[in-house]
Amino acid sequence: MEQSFIDWLRNRATDSPGVKLGIGDDAAILARPARDLVVTTDLLTEGVDFRLAECDARRVGRKALAVNLSDLAAMAAVPRAAFVSLALPREGAAELAEALYEGLLPLAEQYAIALAGGDTNTWEGGLVLSVTAIGEATEQGPWRRGGGRPGDRILATGQFGGSLLGRHFDFEPRVAEALLLNRRYRINAAIDVSDGLALDVSRLAAESGCGAVLRPYDVPVSDAAYEFARQREGGVTPLQHALCDGEDFELVLTAPTEEAARLVGDQPLDVPITDIGELIAGTGLWQVDAQGVRTPLEARGYQH
Amino acid sequence: MEQSFIDWLRNRATDSPGVKLGIGDDAAILARPARDLVVTTDLLTEGVDFRLAECDARRVGRKALAVNLSDLAAMAAVPRAAFVSLALPREGAAELAEALYEGLLPLAEQYAIALAGGDTNTWEGGLVLSVTAIGEATEQGPWRRGGGRPGDRILATGQFGGSLLGRHFDFEPRVAEALLLNRRYRINAAIDVSDGLALDVSRLAAESGCGAVLRPYDVPVSDAAYEFARQREGGVTPLQHALCDGEDFELVLTAPTEEAARLVGDQPLDVPITDIGELIAGTGLWQVDAQGVRTPLEARGYQH
Repeated sequence: MEQSFIDWLRNRATDSPGVKLGIGDDAAILARPARDLVVTTDLLTEGVDFRLAECDARRVGRKALAVNLSDLAAMAAVPRAAFVSLALPREGAAELAEALYEGLLPLAEQYAIALAGGDTNTWEGGLVLSVTAIGEATEQGPWRRGGGRPGDRILATGQFGGSLLGRHFDFEPRVAEALLLNRRYRINAAIDVSDGLALDVSRLAAESGCGAVLRPYDVPVSDAAYEFARQREGGVTPLQHALCDGEDFELVLTAPTEEAARLVGDQPLDVPITDIGELIAGTGLWQVDAQGVRTPLEARGYQH
Repeated sequence: MEQSFIDWLRNRATDSPGVKLGIGDDAAILARPARDLVVTTDLLTEGVDFRLAECDARRVGRKALAVNLSDLAAMAAVPRAAFVSLALPREGAAELAEALYEGLLPLAEQYAIALAGGDTNTWEGGLVLSVTAIGEATEQGPWRRGGGRPGDRILATGQFGGSLLGRHFDFEPRVAEALLLNRRYRINAAIDVSDGLALDVSRLAAESGCGAVLRPYDVPVSDAAYEFARQREGGVTPLQHALCDGEDFELVLTAPTEEAARLVGDQPLDVPITDIGELIAGTGLWQVDAQGVRTPLEARGYQH
């Protein structure tokens, strides 16, 4: 990419006390953190994660950072620095890059994550965005998928389903919510729902060496899931959308029964937090109906 | 990407004491480093950085990590953890991904950098590789481009030019060399030569608020530069290839005169290190001939 773009970007990236040297050298220098580092990376491709013909490039740029912030939230890490690499279609590359950053930079500012480096390229192909985000663990330590125990309640923030109608771009990564919960409650395991509630619950359970039982009638179904079911007319119910659509970017957490009851009673977040099931000894993903009858639940969702 | 591939990769990635949690969760957890972090990211695209039809995918995978190791070397950082994101053509994606990692993993092992995470995707486009490498500063602290001072000698490792004949894939990142020099000598500034010797020297000089004078007749010209000039028959001399070809991935360093003389006298590396010029008060890139006549030197090279 032209030096003029690098200079433009360098001037747009806000200073951060943790970044000793940002954009412009062979690498960035970050001040030694006080605690362990949490590092995540996500890559978005045109035609799979977005269609430039159908959406504003600023939303694409925002999303590329937001999905990484969601991963940091799932670990209860404090966002510190982001690195953004782009493969841009040669035609109109500079304008596209600026639009992407116009969506990305305000989100970075909102979550106090410094844009500390990247690599901007042009090529003959479509748009690819790769973001790596570095966070810092809290005093309570990071959450993991594998910390759940049999008997833990499964809790979920927000509502599920129909994300494709727009929320998959404009979702708010649950960073603030995660840090509050991490500070105040004993959470055993966590994951962010990127590939579908049922699938991601099954992943958390598997990493924890447990099975999981969901109560589908307690899963919070978003208005978008109802709208999506109406639009699609494919016989897929709103609840099925809530269970299997990807990109909700809500948090699923597990906590011991009493702690979970306290948390759900407190409702300490601006979004609802709901008890939707429990981890069990054994394996597999299950559902129970209102009569307590347990049947297998297919861990469907978005498989990359 | 399929879970089976993630599992394959998880088993191939070697354990590292600094990685508390590697591939498989929402993010990796790295142990708190003893010193500042050095972070770099590079993205390679098909048709620009490589052509899959013309080269073994293992060399492409190796290169994607090697260019990042070269950036860490330019900062004199100890490699710690790498994160690899791929956008793979859907057709034959799993085979291609495995081949890329078969090239990348031995290099990671060689330089003791842990493969701690990534994101593997398929799409309708060509191959894109994005690697982020995290290193740790040494006790002497990281090098920067901007630390040079007027009067500093400009030193270069190895030889230049004709990298496209193969060395741009198979180069050895100068990690060990950088760490040795960082430990034993007072280096004021450094850069790795990715876009061409003349261009990258001019960048180092500009960041240091200096001009630079090169002695072209002292620039070590590689055999490949001679071979390349012969093959191309475009009237470009081997020296011009040495000055302007990209992807040599050698180090350019600056040091005060006496320190530079000591270093060049010692020849402490397995590769030669050569005095090729000096930083001067002022701006611009210049060349002097054997008679001491100074003329402007065009900072040509590979512009992304």
